[in-house]
Amino acid sequence: MKKDSNYSVPGFLASAVSAGLKKTSDLDLSLIFSQNKAVAAGVFTTNKVKAAPILLSQERIQKGFLRAVIANAGYANACTGTQGLHDAIQTADMVSKELQILPEETVVASTGVIGAYLPYNLIKKAVPNLVKNLSSHNFESVARALMTTDSFPKMSFFKGQADGRPFHLLGIAKGAGMIMPNMATMLSFLFTDINIDFQTLWPLFRSAVECTFNRITVDGETSTNDMVLIMANGVAGNRTLTTADLKEFERGLTDVMGELAYMIAKDGEGATKTVIIEVHGAASKDDAHTAARVVGNSNLVKTTIFGQDPNWGRIMAALGRAGVTMEENKVQIWIEGIKVVDGGLMTSEEEERKAAEKMKREQITIIIHLNQGEWKDRITTCDLTYDYIRINAGYRT
Amino acid sequence: MKKDSNYSVPGFLASAVSAGLKKTSDLDLSLIFSQNKAVAAGVFTTNKVKAAPILLSQERIQKGFLRAVIANAGYANACTGTQGLHDAIQTADMVSKELQILPEETVVASTGVIGAYLPYNLIKKAVPNLVKNLSSHNFESVARALMTTDSFPKMSFFKGQADGRPFHLLGIAKGAGMIMPNMATMLSFLFTDINIDFQTLWPLFRSAVECTFNRITVDGETSTNDMVLIMANGVAGNRTLTTADLKEFERGLTDVMGELAYMIAKDGEGATKTVIIEVHGAASKDDAHTAARVVGNSNLVKTTIFGQDPNWGRIMAALGRAGVTMEENKVQIWIEGIKVVDGGLMTSEEEERKAAEKMKREQITIIIHLNQGEWKDRITTCDLTYDYIRINAGYRT
Repeated sequence: MKKDSNYSVPGFLASAVSAGLKKTSDLDLSLIFSQNKAVAAGVFTTNKVKAAPILLSQERIQKGFLRAVIANAGYANACTGTQGLHDAIQTADMVSKELQILPEETVVASTGVIGAYLPYNLIKKAVPNLVKNLSSHNFESVARALMTTDSFPKMSFFKGQADGRPFHLLGIAKGAGMIMPNMATMLSFLFTDINIDFQTLWPLFRSAVECTFNRITVDGETSTNDMVLIMANGVAGNRTLTTADLKEFERGLTDVMGELAYMIAKDGEGATKTVIIEVHGAASKDDAHTAARVVGNSNLVKTTIFGQDPNWGRIMAALGRAGVTMEENKVQIWIEGIKVVDGGLMTSEEEERKAAEKMKREQITIIIHLNQGEWKDRITTCDLTYDYIRINAGYRT
Repeated sequence: MKKDSNYSVPGFLASAVSAGLKKTSDLDLSLIFSQNKAVAAGVFTTNKVKAAPILLSQERIQKGFLRAVIANAGYANACTGTQGLHDAIQTADMVSKELQILPEETVVASTGVIGAYLPYNLIKKAVPNLVKNLSSHNFESVARALMTTDSFPKMSFFKGQADGRPFHLLGIAKGAGMIMPNMATMLSFLFTDINIDFQTLWPLFRSAVECTFNRITVDGETSTNDMVLIMANGVAGNRTLTTADLKEFERGLTDVMGELAYMIAKDGEGATKTVIIEVHGAASKDDAHTAARVVGNSNLVKTTIFGQDPNWGRIMAALGRAGVTMEENKVQIWIEGIKVVDGGLMTSEEEERKAAEKMKREQITIIIHLNQGEWKDRITTCDLTYDYIRINAGYRT
């Protein structure tokens, strides 16, 4: 993974402006445009309350092709009814017209406060400039324009080879709170110049989302606006994709989405530590996932990590209420490599002290072995701190 | 409900001492003794990780009779394996011997840190004094001795008539964190002198627990040590129980347990406000319960209440991820009587301002109407504050 914020992908242009949608003068409206018609796929929130941009984009992406994504921060355009849908369509129409593409080739993404109507006039005024500023090196501005409670822009880049030709994969994401993706997740856009058809792209994309974005949680809250989109414009010019090429592309997808997902957990609202919960030896796939998720969402586990206290009793209590197959006296727990629980019991006070020392680190890995079967899973999360309260008690005011 | 902390129930004696189990010199060991053999029933945690006192008490209560309950704070005696079970049995045996009753007539309850072994020697040393101090007016001391992160002792009292004779019902409870009872709950003991058989008592008791203790949540965490016990010693001398008598007793149970449950939510760790979430118009009983519970456990809803912000979008988002039958455009929401959402949309900014004003109150009722059916349910919870983090980041240290 190349480290450079000046990422680009041949055939894609980006732009971001400040349209006055945030209380500050920060960038808040962004556009990504594919010079070619791009193969596109997306996954969307499973929340039954779906924002207007979700309803619109989910419908438009059915065709498997896209050219443009316009995204705004500040307003989620959720719980806004038919007016919200109208605003989303108007926004997409205006962008399409300005770009001289078909209306259905543009999708919309929004993030921000739920329940307030989109200030369409501000967007309308900003779109001409947004289009005028399109350039191949503006992707970092887009990542910045997507931020709400995020503390840093989130980008990841992968360069590979297919059919002997170089291809590029760029991912952008936003997210820090209301994070427990399920099927889809927060906002993330991926752009690649690989030449790939929808039928080949979809399963690779879907499975990469499942093992990356769908394996993080900040606060157990699934948003109304989650979406992950990918666009592949074929500019790389590969004519075929061998099994090895596909493996390489799949690795790229998992790397880029994995890095973005990790960044979201790391940037969890108020977080001081990133926490990886690994569950081994579960009796079923679902059990492994559920156990990791219940421990990863436990307020008591998350505050004990903030307090740098290896209070493993809270992990045991969370496992016990997770509803998974378990026997208390078979559980083993390691905190940063230190075994603190064996056979459901504390190993020793000495080991607890060692674990407490290791918990000063910024990334904490907790490994739980249920010893019930062969299934495993992992969740990336963060600690729960005073700042989560501060951020969320005053979000709108 | 009579307001007087000097409650008593004929035939029951109580006592509490400081045995050195807490870091302070506060009361931490308590005993309740029935001079007669009392009909007894109990419900226990559904957590698969069950503390030693749960395993022991659950077995002993099968017979439907009890004489004594010994309870300690400071140590949960959970995740302590066979040693923990041995300690619980030893404790009960010692109490039984001192009281000259059968071993199986005593049960044990514990609350405190998980994973540490019970300091049995401290308990052994304290039991003789504990027994010596038994008196009919020591129940408030017991309520104090049960406290851990609780900020006040929890008692409730009811006086009724059965078969023309007065009867009494006294309830004691503890709990502030690791609270989302399921089937059973935190520690609560109820004592009555009514003359009732187990077959009559059980369904009344069970259903009162279901609609009181099983309808509160502080942090969505079901403890390893939850238990509610009731003992009825028959001293009131009623020979029969008419339908009207049973109704009166049932009202007493619901009143006493309801008040104790409310106190636990009010005393939720760090809480500044008590919050009642009422769901109406759900498509099924389960939907009503699930919707109320998901909203009541949402960190984002709980922080917005702490922030006194009528951010109803978070309630909509929580409903949407609850997995219940709902249509966004049929939802109505009232905050303290102010309708903030109608047809899934904001009513007006004026109503929001009014709701914000009402949110300064210490008790907030949120009414949600799903307009899908005839089922309703309610959950009592609290807000999520800086102090929850402070209490739980430093609990063991």
